Amino acid sequence: MAQDPLIVFTPSGRRGRFPAGTPVLQAARSLGVDIDSVCGGRGLCGRCQIRLSTGEFSKHGIVSRGENLSAANQVEARYDDKRGIRAGQRLSCQARILGDLAIDVPRESQVHKQVVRKRAEARDIEIDPAIRLHYIEVEQPDMHNPSGDMERVMKALHEQWEIDGLECDLRVLQVLQKVLRDGDWKITVAVHRGQVLTTAWPGFHDQAYGVAVDVGSTTIAAHLCKLATGEVVASAGIMNPQIRFGEDLMSRVSYVMMNPGGEVELTAAVREAIDTLFQEVAAEAGIDKDDILNATFVGNPIMHHLLLGIDPTELGGAPFALAANSGLTFWASEIELSELNRGARVYVLPCIAGHVGADTAGVILSESPHLSDEIVLVVDVGTNAEILLGDKQRLLACSSPTGPAFEGAQISCGQRAAPGAIERVRIDPETLEPRYKVIGCDLWSDQEGFDAATEATGVTGVCGSGIIEVLAEMYLSGILMSDGTIDGAMAARSGRVRPDGRTFSYLLRAGEPELCIQQNDVRAIQLAKAALYAGARLLMDRLGIENLDRIVLAGAFGSHIDTKYAMVLGMIPDCDLAKVSAAGNAAGTGAIIALLNQSARDEIAQVIRRVEKIETAVEPRFQEHFIAAMGLPHTSEPFARLAAAVALPAPKTGGAEARGDNGGRRRRRNRNS
Amino acid sequence: MAQDPLIVFTPSGRRGRFPAGTPVLQAARSLGVDIDSVCGGRGLCGRCQIRLSTGEFSKHGIVSRGENLSAANQVEARYDDKRGIRAGQRLSCQARILGDLAIDVPRESQVHKQVVRKRAEARDIEIDPAIRLHYIEVEQPDMHNPSGDMERVMKALHEQWEIDGLECDLRVLQVLQKVLRDGDWKITVAVHRGQVLTTAWPGFHDQAYGVAVDVGSTTIAAHLCKLATGEVVASAGIMNPQIRFGEDLMSRVSYVMMNPGGEVELTAAVREAIDTLFQEVAAEAGIDKDDILNATFVGNPIMHHLLLGIDPTELGGAPFALAANSGLTFWASEIELSELNRGARVYVLPCIAGHVGADTAGVILSESPHLSDEIVLVVDVGTNAEILLGDKQRLLACSSPTGPAFEGAQISCGQRAAPGAIERVRIDPETLEPRYKVIGCDLWSDQEGFDAATEATGVTGVCGSGIIEVLAEMYLSGILMSDGTIDGAMAARSGRVRPDGRTFSYLLRAGEPELCIQQNDVRAIQLAKAALYAGARLLMDRLGIENLDRIVLAGAFGSHIDTKYAMVLGMIPDCDLAKVSAAGNAAGTGAIIALLNQSARDEIAQVIRRVEKIETAVEPRFQEHFIAAMGLPHTSEPFARLAAAVALPAPKTGGAEARGDNGGRRRRRNRNS
Repeated sequence: MAQDPLIVFTPSGRRGRFPAGTPVLQAARSLGVDIDSVCGGRGLCGRCQIRLSTGEFSKHGIVSRGENLSAANQVEARYDDKRGIRAGQRLSCQARILGDLAIDVPRESQVHKQVVRKRAEARDIEIDPAIRLHYIEVEQPDMHNPSGDMERVMKALHEQWEIDGLECDLRVLQVLQKVLRDGDWKITVAVHRGQVLTTAWPGFHDQAYGVAVDVGSTTIAAHLCKLATGEVVASAGIMNPQIRFGEDLMSRVSYVMMNPGGEVELTAAVREAIDTLFQEVAAEAGIDKDDILNATFVGNPIMHHLLLGIDPTELGGAPFALAANSGLTFWASEIELSELNRGARVYVLPCIAGHVGADTAGVILSESPHLSDEIVLVVDVGTNAEILLGDKQRLLACSSPTGPAFEGAQISCGQRAAPGAIERVRIDPETLEPRYKVIGCDLWSDQEGFDAATEATGVTGVCGSGIIEVLAEMYLSGILMSDGTIDGAMAARSGRVRPDGRTFSYLLRAGEPELCIQQNDVRAIQLAKAALYAGARLLMDRLGIENLDRIVLAGAFGSHIDTKYAMVLGMIPDCDLAKVSAAGNAAGTGAIIALLNQSARDEIAQVIRRVEKIETAVEPRFQEHFIAAMGLPHTSEPFARLAAAVALPAPKTGGAEARGDNGGRRRRRNRNS
Repeated sequence: MAQDPLIVFTPSGRRGRFPAGTPVLQAARSLGVDIDSVCGGRGLCGRCQIRLSTGEFSKHGIVSRGENLSAANQVEARYDDKRGIRAGQRLSCQARILGDLAIDVPRESQVHKQVVRKRAEARDIEIDPAIRLHYIEVEQPDMHNPSGDMERVMKALHEQWEIDGLECDLRVLQVLQKVLRDGDWKITVAVHRGQVLTTAWPGFHDQAYGVAVDVGSTTIAAHLCKLATGEVVASAGIMNPQIRFGEDLMSRVSYVMMNPGGEVELTAAVREAIDTLFQEVAAEAGIDKDDILNATFVGNPIMHHLLLGIDPTELGGAPFALAANSGLTFWASEIELSELNRGARVYVLPCIAGHVGADTAGVILSESPHLSDEIVLVVDVGTNAEILLGDKQRLLACSSPTGPAFEGAQISCGQRAAPGAIERVRIDPETLEPRYKVIGCDLWSDQEGFDAATEATGVTGVCGSGIIEVLAEMYLSGILMSDGTIDGAMAARSGRVRPDGRTFSYLLRAGEPELCIQQNDVRAIQLAKAALYAGARLLMDRLGIENLDRIVLAGAFGSHIDTKYAMVLGMIPDCDLAKVSAAGNAAGTGAIIALLNQSARDEIAQVIRRVEKIETAVEPRFQEHFIAAMGLPHTSEPFARLAAAVALPAPKTGGAEARGDNGGRRRRRNRNS
């Protein structure tokens, strides 16, 4: 008797023999090959497409021929007609094995497909969302053998999908009878983490979206993702309306402390803004809000607590106790969000410590320091800087109170990053004349056409990255001394340096508005960068290291600053510049990862447990590092390379010192040692 | 070396040796002796009281002396002062073993104590509520080792109570930080079924109540119970406000069918009424609504669905599909009940079939036919009659459409049971003169002082049990013939029987109002009792039996009717009258049982699965039995005893027949065979 046909699947390499006539999908399932399906093999969803590989697969003893696969049937023709089968592919639920076959499962057809991220150092995301759709055909009620509609749905899930022990949300139960009858006993259900039936639609339904939200103190950003593919189909941002209760976090906590019940207002404001964002992303993508089935959130501890309706007062003072430091899962309705499916589930990433929030948990998921072979420093700069340091052996975390100077606040000419804001600056070391670029224009200010190009926006102020550059350039050109003083002696060389009360200022731009860097602006940045640096150094002390293998700058600020200048100012410890990268909104990316991959939620719970949390507020060493980091000179080896990179002479030290002796002086006074 | 002291606990008989100085509670726990405690051995709750048994326990080799137990300490003195220790008892958490001891654990101190029910045939209730209170002492936050307040609560529950894997309701998390600080890190939490933390109070809290609700079509009844003892501390009833949408169930379903969205109104009405009831029982017992932590519900399928916010339309026609036939657990807030703790959990007993609801599940829990050695028929008469038949081998259930005649509706002189309603009737077989008693008065109408005693209420109508008696008496006195016709020939004997259009009526009471039994009233009761009887017979056919061992009449009607008369009319099959009992509101009792004993919820889920459900609407045999049961004569052996019991001559058959030949005639025409 002839043997059954042999079939091998690539890329998995799994193989086995099946009787002629077996559908390819069935063979794949029994071999544990990863092929997607929502409709359960009924030719409705098109998720299970495969490709025939023809030729000889001698390793497997297979000669795979076209005629060994059944010809396309009517179901496939209908699907192809309606929604299109990809060229050269087949629906594996319809295609039947007739002889030996080699079958390739394309990436798009795999359940656990990888989403490849653009940055080489970033981990790919494996698609494995918490919400899965399942199409089922449900037995009709029989009054001679009465049972509940819900129980027959559960029976169908057991028989058709091997899913058991589900709970059914009461809201689903309330509409289930109508859904079943509207769908003529064929329905699609959404199942959350294999545990809860959260939604039901009549008939076949293939739209499942989730939204990942980064709740920042200043802005809230949402990314709408297609759960099956990981595709981000819409993104939107909105100002956090809590700003009307206080610009920064602590003033919002103060508001709550001084206005009992004020947390209710703050909570309502942020939830309302999130609902607005949900409307925006759904409209942008042209989808129904009922197709948003899952939402994930990151945010600093205070945003986290206010989103959840928890009074943040405890976070306002020592011991900075979190209400909870676990990831939390609940219904969107429990936090009164309504612009998504009424059975939508919410997952909020865990906070790590009183000052290290779910945003940092998101950064960990995005940047994976806990999996790194190298020692990596991850810095997420906002109003506070969250700092992570470590590798796959140990991971340390702290938060450093940088204040909002890096975001352009507390700077006389500062502003938020927006069209018209100066973001790049160069100062001629001889003439001390500046040139600059503004957001929204590709020309430098000394190039022809700049005025015309910026007429619409004007030149309105200096954003965070512009502040860093102008200070670094002032330092490199000798205007700033190593203690951060604007050198009044330079006034003799250029009218740009001019007296300003008892100190001096530097005129970055004449005209309307006039943009000056004042001595207090320098001090504000000095305080901020010293805090950032001190936090990083504190963690390095704890880890017992002097050198970093790699630095990742996360957050909008980290993405926009030129890392060379950050290092010139001593914001971050020395590191090979080639090993310093910007991660963009890593916290938001972490929220996306938790949305697309449910096991990332378990992973972060594990990681959080082993993170060593350092509270900077009570570490004497932090104060020491902070004071030591206030000055500007930077004298290490990498600095020489840096100075060369920005193609400028080495900077001058304090005005009282001989200008020719800078190098050696700096080396002896290295403030970072 | 001397052996450690030996200790024996009664009534369990468990014993063991423990080092001198061991607290008695600790010894009890390590032996698995059932002793209650909320405070975990801190002398706060007084639940763990025990009694020293002195003397020789030679079976255990113990001589138990008073000096072998430590003297009462300050903690006990303080507790005794504040709340009182029962005479001769000790707090086992404070009393220490000094030598050999025999210790008795009184019933009140056992966790799983039994609540003994008054009716001998009813199963006792073992106290084991779904909600348990646990007092814990929680570690304070440490910023050097940061963790969430919630996680430290969970740690305390693990360490102090060996409870793990709890979920914490978001509503608890929202207030947890304040509760912990208000309680100086000592709090009491409520845990639902060992799975969910539902409430937290500062400090020690020992009040936990639950409410069992019977949602009837006409009235809703609630019983407030102390969960620790099972004591019913308050009960209240209220009219079901849905009555304004339709007197009976089917008219409410019709309302929903004709007014899309009408189910929302019906649902809101019943929920509001329940909240009002909760307020009433809490006020009656003088407790805070926040101490009501659990609620259980029974009700017929339509009430069940409307309570849950499910459109009952499907129950209005074949195949009478239930949305669900499992017991359901959710938050009180999910069904918008607010007059109890905001973390209160709700359990709704399972419906069995489209016409057999959660009320019948309650009856099963109360009456335990599934555990009976005898074949028992349980009948719960309301607008429908729910009928259970079986024993521990098999259990059958059906619903029979009796209509509301038994409740006094559709009867010309009928009314609900209320003061002034006639509930007992006797007719003199010679004179055909009636005498009667009304609710609220102990005198018969022919006794002196009756008019004065009923002046306040008047005599307003005839309630369900009165209808049964008057018809049975009319039959026994010959006014009614075997086919249910009022015998016009009797008009010659008494002016009480008088022409009424083309038929005759019987004047039960002259005056204002005049109360007459009309021919149509007889017909309405005939239809109702035939339906009831036919349902019971149908189940007997299915079970293949001709005789019953026992009958239980449940519900208000079943409790008020004289079972003799019910049997005279042929409402229920023949059975030894001594074996016919009334169970009162068994459905409500079932709700109480499910409230006090969580394993009853699992038990009923098991029983429901094996119940054989019969749909009377599609059973041809039901129609046959129904038609056969329309007549009145009842000719079996027990009937002869019955007739003797009511001390009246055997009734007459149809007017056309010779009166002296009744016995033999009846025997030949036995309609039930």
